Amino acid sequence: MSYQAGRHFLQIPGPTNTPLPVLAAIAKPTIDHRGPEFGRLGREVLAGIKTIFKTENPVIIYPASGTGAWEAALCNTLSPGDQILMFETGWFSTLWSKMAKKLGLEAEVIPGDWRHGVDAGAIEARLAEDKDHRIKAVCIVHNETSTGVTSRVAAVRRAIDKAGHPALLLVDTISSLGSIDYRHDEWGVDVTVGGSQKGLMLPPGLSFNAISDKALAASRTAKLPRSFWDWEEMLEINAKGFFPYTPSTNLLQGLNVALGMLHEEGLDNVFARHDRAAEATRRCVRHWGFEIQCAEPAEYSSSLTAVRLPDGHSADNLRAEILARFNMSLGNGLGPLADKVFRIGHLGDFHDLMVTGVLTGVEMGLRVCGIPHNPGGVDVAMSYLAGNAGPGATPAN
Amino acid sequence: MSYQAGRHFLQIPGPTNTPLPVLAAIAKPTIDHRGPEFGRLGREVLAGIKTIFKTENPVIIYPASGTGAWEAALCNTLSPGDQILMFETGWFSTLWSKMAKKLGLEAEVIPGDWRHGVDAGAIEARLAEDKDHRIKAVCIVHNETSTGVTSRVAAVRRAIDKAGHPALLLVDTISSLGSIDYRHDEWGVDVTVGGSQKGLMLPPGLSFNAISDKALAASRTAKLPRSFWDWEEMLEINAKGFFPYTPSTNLLQGLNVALGMLHEEGLDNVFARHDRAAEATRRCVRHWGFEIQCAEPAEYSSSLTAVRLPDGHSADNLRAEILARFNMSLGNGLGPLADKVFRIGHLGDFHDLMVTGVLTGVEMGLRVCGIPHNPGGVDVAMSYLAGNAGPGATPAN
Amino acid sequence: MSYQAGRHFLQIPGPTNTPLPVLAAIAKPTIDHRGPEFGRLGREVLAGIKTIFKTENPVIIYPASGTGAWEAALCNTLSPGDQILMFETGWFSTLWSKMAKKLGLEAEVIPGDWRHGVDAGAIEARLAEDKDHRIKAVCIVHNETSTGVTSRVAAVRRAIDKAGHPALLLVDTISSLGSIDYRHDEWGVDVTVGGSQKGLMLPPGLSFNAISDKALAASRTAKLPRSFWDWEEMLEINAKGFFPYTPSTNLLQGLNVALGMLHEEGLDNVFARHDRAAEATRRCVRHWGFEIQCAEPAEYSSSLTAVRLPDGHSADNLRAEILARFNMSLGNGLGPLADKVFRIGHLGDFHDLMVTGVLTGVEMGLRVCGIPHNPGGVDVAMSYLAGNAGPGATPAN
Amino acid sequence: MSYQAGRHFLQIPGPTNTPLPVLAAIAKPTIDHRGPEFGRLGREVLAGIKTIFKTENPVIIYPASGTGAWEAALCNTLSPGDQILMFETGWFSTLWSKMAKKLGLEAEVIPGDWRHGVDAGAIEARLAEDKDHRIKAVCIVHNETSTGVTSRVAAVRRAIDKAGHPALLLVDTISSLGSIDYRHDEWGVDVTVGGSQKGLMLPPGLSFNAISDKALAASRTAKLPRSFWDWEEMLEINAKGFFPYTPSTNLLQGLNVALGMLHEEGLDNVFARHDRAAEATRRCVRHWGFEIQCAEPAEYSSSLTAVRLPDGHSADNLRAEILARFNMSLGNGLGPLADKVFRIGHLGDFHDLMVTGVLTGVEMGLRVCGIPHNPGGVDVAMSYLAGNAGPGATPAN
Repeated sequence: MSYQAGRHFLQIPGPTNTPLPVLAAIAKPTIDHRGPEFGRLGREVLAGIKTIFKTENPVIIYPASGTGAWEAALCNTLSPGDQILMFETGWFSTLWSKMAKKLGLEAEVIPGDWRHGVDAGAIEARLAEDKDHRIKAVCIVHNETSTGVTSRVAAVRRAIDKAGHPALLLVDTISSLGSIDYRHDEWGVDVTVGGSQKGLMLPPGLSFNAISDKALAASRTAKLPRSFWDWEEMLEINAKGFFPYTPSTNLLQGLNVALGMLHEEGLDNVFARHDRAAEATRRCVRHWGFEIQCAEPAEYSSSLTAVRLPDGHSADNLRAEILARFNMSLGNGLGPLADKVFRIGHLGDFHDLMVTGVLTGVEMGLRVCGIPHNPGGVDVAMSYLAGNAGPGATPAN
Repeated sequence: MSYQAGRHFLQIPGPTNTPLPVLAAIAKPTIDHRGPEFGRLGREVLAGIKTIFKTENPVIIYPASGTGAWEAALCNTLSPGDQILMFETGWFSTLWSKMAKKLGLEAEVIPGDWRHGVDAGAIEARLAEDKDHRIKAVCIVHNETSTGVTSRVAAVRRAIDKAGHPALLLVDTISSLGSIDYRHDEWGVDVTVGGSQKGLMLPPGLSFNAISDKALAASRTAKLPRSFWDWEEMLEINAKGFFPYTPSTNLLQGLNVALGMLHEEGLDNVFARHDRAAEATRRCVRHWGFEIQCAEPAEYSSSLTAVRLPDGHSADNLRAEILARFNMSLGNGLGPLADKVFRIGHLGDFHDLMVTGVLTGVEMGLRVCGIPHNPGGVDVAMSYLAGNAGPGATPAN
Repeated sequence: MSYQAGRHFLQIPGPTNTPLPVLAAIAKPTIDHRGPEFGRLGREVLAGIKTIFKTENPVIIYPASGTGAWEAALCNTLSPGDQILMFETGWFSTLWSKMAKKLGLEAEVIPGDWRHGVDAGAIEARLAEDKDHRIKAVCIVHNETSTGVTSRVAAVRRAIDKAGHPALLLVDTISSLGSIDYRHDEWGVDVTVGGSQKGLMLPPGLSFNAISDKALAASRTAKLPRSFWDWEEMLEINAKGFFPYTPSTNLLQGLNVALGMLHEEGLDNVFARHDRAAEATRRCVRHWGFEIQCAEPAEYSSSLTAVRLPDGHSADNLRAEILARFNMSLGNGLGPLADKVFRIGHLGDFHDLMVTGVLTGVEMGLRVCGIPHNPGGVDVAMSYLAGNAGPGATPAN
Repeated sequence: MSYQAGRHFLQIPGPTNTPLPVLAAIAKPTIDHRGPEFGRLGREVLAGIKTIFKTENPVIIYPASGTGAWEAALCNTLSPGDQILMFETGWFSTLWSKMAKKLGLEAEVIPGDWRHGVDAGAIEARLAEDKDHRIKAVCIVHNETSTGVTSRVAAVRRAIDKAGHPALLLVDTISSLGSIDYRHDEWGVDVTVGGSQKGLMLPPGLSFNAISDKALAASRTAKLPRSFWDWEEMLEINAKGFFPYTPSTNLLQGLNVALGMLHEEGLDNVFARHDRAAEATRRCVRHWGFEIQCAEPAEYSSSLTAVRLPDGHSADNLRAEILARFNMSLGNGLGPLADKVFRIGHLGDFHDLMVTGVLTGVEMGLRVCGIPHNPGGVDVAMSYLAGNAGPGATPAN
């Protein structure tokens, strides 16, 4: 590929554009992970990360990327042969069910159409049938990164409760954490799985398990073999700010800075900013005349939008042209959506002007590729954003 | 000002957005400016910078910002009381003439309207009158940063020649160097003044004098007192890659990387990229219904565009709102243009998608401020850029 | 702790002092892990890492710290209840055996005295007894980080062969890789476990499995549940330079730079540099009158030296004083060696002058703490190093 | 030169080892030098720098390296042909006098032997002779970087006063500022010249003029031509935190961090740390049997030590060997001291362990080069430092 001037626009739905202060913190010299300076850092990040999951309970931080935290959630709470109930929201829920099977669990997957979120009623119905409580856990994806659909977690919690079923609730929040409101304690989630490289604005390499008391109790009898992922020793040593084996020190330095940035902005402001970016994007996409992959407005994702191209047009070709000509990466369609869908990530360290910049890149790409569309989508987005812009000018200085 | 997420858009006409590899080079540890590693660096940057000025002659690199190189150009070639001829293209040509007066020169300024470049005919006429060659130098600004007007340097050279006048030609190329084609040798310029913080994509702190043989000869008899700016000792010691006093080592580390990037892209590609950004910007501005400050199409600047707002609207208020709401800095109107004009910098490490991103910021700002305009300017820019985009997709990988 | 000027000396036996170019590479913006630029990076690091393990076979790179690669080695090659043979060289061999038990393996540990390496004869004898080949793997630590003892891996290979036993040979090389010569293929190792944060000069966060054909064959029938650590899908997708789940992109950027640095210096030069640092350290320690924890000269580690303090003196107090007064971190004694031993890391991006600097810090610490010793240890180290220094001055420039 | 592992030891007497947080601040994106964020930065650094000069008066910050601030001090306060009195302390005082002559001043230099500081008595005597006050300024170097001699500025002030002479007192404090106590106001200095690249721990590129009321008054009648260096416009615009021409924005970002670090440590602690490093160095040098260039103990410099080698030994060869073998840069002998003297910089972001590390490098270099010396110098330094070390261990965590 020929030389490309200017900053790359990394608009896949994660990893996201890491802010420079976070990169600078990661590039600080590595410190002794058994020394007093690390102890302070450890205590700060272990306390800080709880505020993002909105939990009073401990959150485990793994020196491993997000997929590892999926495995940790399963193997700490379940035993070989355990039955679990999953819901097919898209590519990532499917991957998680495949992992469960590889680990020796019996994963039953309620089929979905990749355009809607978790059907809480279907969960309730299935649990109600399970009179002898063979199902040990319900596993769902909060924000399905392959489709841009956000499931209603609280509704699933209510469904389990209505069915009077003791199953644990395990939730993947990798692509929503820090971008879309999430409430581990209030929503009664047992294990929440998170990762560093999306709303937390870090590179990949850290992942998380937020744990309820019920999950912790389950871990005491769960029989899936585990060591690296084991919560017990981790929680014991975390109490002093340290880790049982070498933590990812430099990413933790970055995490501490990222947590500070999220709170400086205010989590509610962060969520509102993502909502605004998403709404502007959808208005633009609709104006162009394209369908949004998410079919249910109440489930639109605020961190990414998956866009369906009309039949006969290649989404992958469009992405390749946009990368080559306009220095922007977009997300590809996964599984059955391959080449039919492209995904716009509008999450992380991102502002209104970047939203419109990204949309101009897509609109120019459509022109270059000759994909029929109604021009003016960016105008519609600008109109929305200008009327809903952030706080105005304060008196100079 | 409240917290602002995302990358700041620094769209003043310099300093420009410094590329991260250049910032990384500047942040490398300082090295011994008298050691062998520095010698290699010194020889590389002293050779490399010549290619940007398009000269075979030496170029001086000062550890000082651009204004210093103005002073260096004057005090190395002129003597107290010398008469010089300048042309009022705008704020910066005016500042340079004020400096000349402070240094004890008699600066005669041909008045201009701040909307046109240097009038080569007027230069020729004035020199023709100067039968006894009391005028020792003609000083002009290649790209007037306050107005977005690029003067035709070669025409001025021809004017001097036609008048058969021996005056030196001194040219300020601070906001054009590395963005707009410039040819020190071919155009017969005697001293060219440059700075680091625009097309060279560095922070401020380095400045340059490219020197003709004639200028060098003049320096041997010039009587303005000088030491820091003195060429003689500098040239002598530069021959081995070193400097007579402490150079700005870390910025030189960055300069070496920046020169490499410009040549990797290819200077002609760099200039074409700037031309494209400028044309897209002007089409957008015209569509909005605003006047471009530069009144002569042949003199449009490719590194910035100064935009005139309709009477009764404050350009400074518009800039303040855009900064507060959309995290973008634009250039202010200077001198008589204060609050009437805003300036869009489209130079340095900049690509098509950033052009449109910037224009969306301005268009949204116009909406927010209620400044009447014809919506759709960004569409016009996109249409132009999509039809004139860079090289297309190469086969993946 | 009060303000400490100057660079911290991180002289634990890993993580090591990360070179600035590696930190700079890690701090480059995150890239699309499914895009063409990542594909190039992936292919480069996957090829490059083989040269460090000295293998023609594939090496897996996990986005997880070193302990994870221990688990990966076990769960890819073994089945629940499998018997394995380990050798107690110190703290880390013990931890590995505990992990094996947690994963459901029957780990038999041949006791050691924490002052010697693996006893190949004992391995051979035990395997010879195992007529029906119930032992499926022999697991040893190449360089025991808790004691500074380097085991002779080739001798263990020969012992297995002499016993005519089919057990796999699994070796942990976390604190030797890139510092002490290691030959996966030549020595007939089946799985080698490595980490990023020692001789590879990166922060923690990456770990490795180098794999023999025999290990790969074993993985096809191994029944321990695994998904994150599973080799199969990893190898398949690695073939194109990509990963089945999100890799630790930024650490991979750093790895590529670190591999380049090791090869620019030349691996043999790297090893010789470590040997020299270790020998200087031991001469100094002996002169002080202290015992080296490693009792067998043929097994001295070149990456760290564990030093025994005389009875009645606290190694932890000495380390705390050195940290507070001289801004240097040393490694603590682990397990039964707690407070009796301190460990000097002399590995990674480290040169002669840093060796002597570190030793002055220890010698000054001994004075401050009033620990009786024979002064002049640093002199002895200097004398050795000055007589065995690296290449001399080349002609200037 | 072949590959060199590990951190370079930059032990010239400036530029010094820039701390990583300062480099990180310099590598932050360039900001709009006319925007509100810059205004805050400008006000902070302009206020902060006063505390380092210990003045209530304004301090000018030039975007130029230190030599420029010499020129600024002269041309703002003097007129062509003015007589000034200087004192030859070494290379840099000589360079300053040469500059004065190039600028058209009549510089009278009281000869010195390059081993002592300014002779206040000689100054007094010469001023006493100057009945009609033709001498307009006395110019001295506080810390002569070529010799490691610190002159007693307060004594020179008293000498001028005793002579009842109105001459201005101009002092160069480039290599002492931020390392050795300096008191612009208390000592009655009229212009103090400083630079960024020594005790302020920045790369080169900024320089300073601290100004008394008397100097300011003198500037109103001084006739040397000036523009870039002119105080008047600078002071006017500095009042709001801005600069009349483009400042060196990124170095100012670093300056702000460096000022914070100096105050976090406490200036008195900073000075004590430098005193301790210097005393340790001198004890070591004396033990080796070498002469210290500074002949007067009351004038020893705390920021560098110049060491005289015995006749027949080349200091430059020693420095070259140390650079090639031990990755450390030392300062060369200047002018008449070339090849006879080498200089050890022990200033900036530097601690006890770096002092001893540096001294081991020199002692090993002496062995390698076969220069006769009494071994054990480092022991003597360690003995001194261990008995005078910084604050002890605080309770862990």
